[in-house]
Amino acid sequence: MSNLINQNMMEAIDWINKSDNIYLVSHVQPDGDNIGSLLALGLAIKRLKGNVSIIKVDDIPSDFMFLPNIDMIKEQDINKPIDLLISLDCSDLGRLGIGKEFALKANIVINIDHHISNDNFGHINIVSPSSAATAEIVYDFINKMGVLIDKDIATCLYTGISTDTGSFTYSNTSYKTHLIAAELLKTGIDADYININLYQNRSMIRTKLFIDSLNSLETYLDDKVGLVMITQDMLKQNNAKMEDTEGIISFIKGIDSVEVACLLKEMDQREIKVSLRSKRYIDVSRICSKFNGGGHVRAAGCTIYEEILDAKKLILNEIISNFR
Amino acid sequence: MSNLINQNMMEAIDWINKSDNIYLVSHVQPDGDNIGSLLALGLAIKRLKGNVSIIKVDDIPSDFMFLPNIDMIKEQDINKPIDLLISLDCSDLGRLGIGKEFALKANIVINIDHHISNDNFGHINIVSPSSAATAEIVYDFINKMGVLIDKDIATCLYTGISTDTGSFTYSNTSYKTHLIAAELLKTGIDADYININLYQNRSMIRTKLFIDSLNSLETYLDDKVGLVMITQDMLKQNNAKMEDTEGIISFIKGIDSVEVACLLKEMDQREIKVSLRSKRYIDVSRICSKFNGGGHVRAAGCTIYEEILDAKKLILNEIISNFR
Repeated sequence: MSNLINQNMMEAIDWINKSDNIYLVSHVQPDGDNIGSLLALGLAIKRLKGNVSIIKVDDIPSDFMFLPNIDMIKEQDINKPIDLLISLDCSDLGRLGIGKEFALKANIVINIDHHISNDNFGHINIVSPSSAATAEIVYDFINKMGVLIDKDIATCLYTGISTDTGSFTYSNTSYKTHLIAAELLKTGIDADYININLYQNRSMIRTKLFIDSLNSLETYLDDKVGLVMITQDMLKQNNAKMEDTEGIISFIKGIDSVEVACLLKEMDQREIKVSLRSKRYIDVSRICSKFNGGGHVRAAGCTIYEEILDAKKLILNEIISNFR
Repeated sequence: MSNLINQNMMEAIDWINKSDNIYLVSHVQPDGDNIGSLLALGLAIKRLKGNVSIIKVDDIPSDFMFLPNIDMIKEQDINKPIDLLISLDCSDLGRLGIGKEFALKANIVINIDHHISNDNFGHINIVSPSSAATAEIVYDFINKMGVLIDKDIATCLYTGISTDTGSFTYSNTSYKTHLIAAELLKTGIDADYININLYQNRSMIRTKLFIDSLNSLETYLDDKVGLVMITQDMLKQNNAKMEDTEGIISFIKGIDSVEVACLLKEMDQREIKVSLRSKRYIDVSRICSKFNGGGHVRAAGCTIYEEILDAKKLILNEIISNFR
C-alpha cells in the first residue's frame, strides 16, 4: 500500500465520519468483486454510522443472492440529498449506469478501484492496480476505519477476492491475496458454503447450453485455436440467455494445445460479440483493436457487425495472422 | 502443529541427519500432492545430504511432467541397502505398491501423511489430519530441517497444496493453507505457469470424451441426482483411457440442483466402478458401503460386478432410498 493510497484512505475515512447521507455504487453488469465490495463496505459503514444506501444499477446475478444482506442493494431515490458517494470497482463514471447521476449530484465522490484503466474521476481516488480485487483494497480500508471484520463482512470480501482471482489461480493473485484470505478464514466464515454457491451452482439451462455449444467446438491451426459460436437459435432451443454462456470460453482455453480461445455471441443478426482469451504468448487485445475493441493481453473483446459466419471468418483470419 | 508432531519431526530429522541411504516413496496412482511432496522433500534432503532416492511405484500422469526435477522419481534397485525410508501421503503400506518391499527392508520407516485413515505403520509417524495436504506438513518439515525453500521446492509444494484443495476451494482449506501459499508465492514462483499446467492442460482426447459423456447425462429426482456412464465403447470411439474421465464427476456436481453426482465406469463387462460425490447432506460413503465400497461422506466409491445397466439400476435405487 503506497503512501499516497494510505493518505487518501485517511482522508476518505474523514469524509465518512463527517458525512450524513452516504451512498455506495458499483458498475453495471455486476460481478462477485463488485457485489462483495459493495456489501462489505456497506456493512462496515452501517456499523459505524447506523445508515448507508447502496444503489442498485443493474440486475444482480442469481449466483450472488446467497450473500448476507444482499437486499441492502436496492433502487434509490435520486431526489434525496447525497453528501458522499463511494464508487467501488469502477474505472469511469460511464460504467456506473444510472449511478452516474447520483455521482454527479454528490458533494464528494470517493473512487476505490483496482483497474489500471481507472481515470481517477473521484475527488478522492484510491486506485491500486496491484491489488487482485477491489475487495482487497476494501479489506485494508475497513481495517483502517477501525470496524471489526465479522463473518458477514468476511464472506463478502472472500467472495470478491475469490471470484476476481479465479479462486486464486489468475496471475493477479499475490502473496498478499493469500494473507488476506487467511485472515478472512480466521473469522470463521464457511468457505465451503461460499465455494459451493460460487462454483457448484450452474443452472440446468446453463449446463445444457454448455454441452450443446461444445458439440460445435471447432479448432484451427493444429488445435492452437478453439472456437465456439452461440446463436440466437441455440439460446431459444435451450431456453437460455446470452449470460448463460459463462464458463464456455475458459473450458476452451483449458484444452492443452489451445493458445487462443474464441467465443462468438450472436447478439443480433448482424451484431456479433467476440470474446478472446490467450494462454501464453498471443496478444488478444491487439487482435480486438483491429475491430475497434480492446481489453488486456490475455483477455479482450470486440463487436463485429456482420452475420455470424462472416464474423467468424474475419476474426479467424486476424487470429491466425497473429500466429505468424 | 501439536507437540507430538513437533517431537516426531525432530526425531525424523535426527534420523535424516545420521542416515546414508535415504529413500522416499508415495502411493500408487500418484496425484499432485503425492508427487509435489516427494519432489519437495527430495530436493530438500538432496541439498542437505547430497543424495536421495525417490522410488517410482507407478506411471506419472502427464499433468505433472512440468514439475522441476520430475526425473528424480525413478525405478530403484531393491537390492541396495536402505537405511531410512520416508513414506509420504500414504495411509497404509499396501498402497505403496512395490514401494512396500522397500519399506519392509528399510531399517527405519518415517510415515508423513494427512489422511485420517492412516494406520501409523512407521517407526516414526507424522500424521496430521487437520492439514489440507501432505505438502503442508512437508512445508513445516523442511523449515524445521533448516533448508531454504527455494523456487523449485516452492513450486512442488504449491502444486501439492493447490491440487489437494481444489485450488483452495475444498473444505479442508484452512487459514494456515493460505498462509503457506503466501509464503510460497513470496519465493517468486511462477504461480500462473503452475496453474496453467495444472488446470488449463486438458488433452483433446479428454476434452472429446468429456463432451461425449455429457451428451448422455441423465438426471433423477428433480435433477437432485446426476449420472453419467462411461463404457468401453465410448473409450474406443474417443481413443481414450479410463483415466481420461477426470473432471466429469465434478462437472455433474457443479449443477445447482445436484446433490449426488454419480459416475459409472465400465472397467470390464461385469465390473463397474462407481464414483459418488455429494454436495451438502447425503452420506455417499454409506451408499457405497452397501456394495462393499467406502470413502468419505462427500466422496466415495465401490465396484459392482454386474453389467453396466444393471449396476446403474442397483446404485440408483440405493441413492434414491437415501433421499427419503
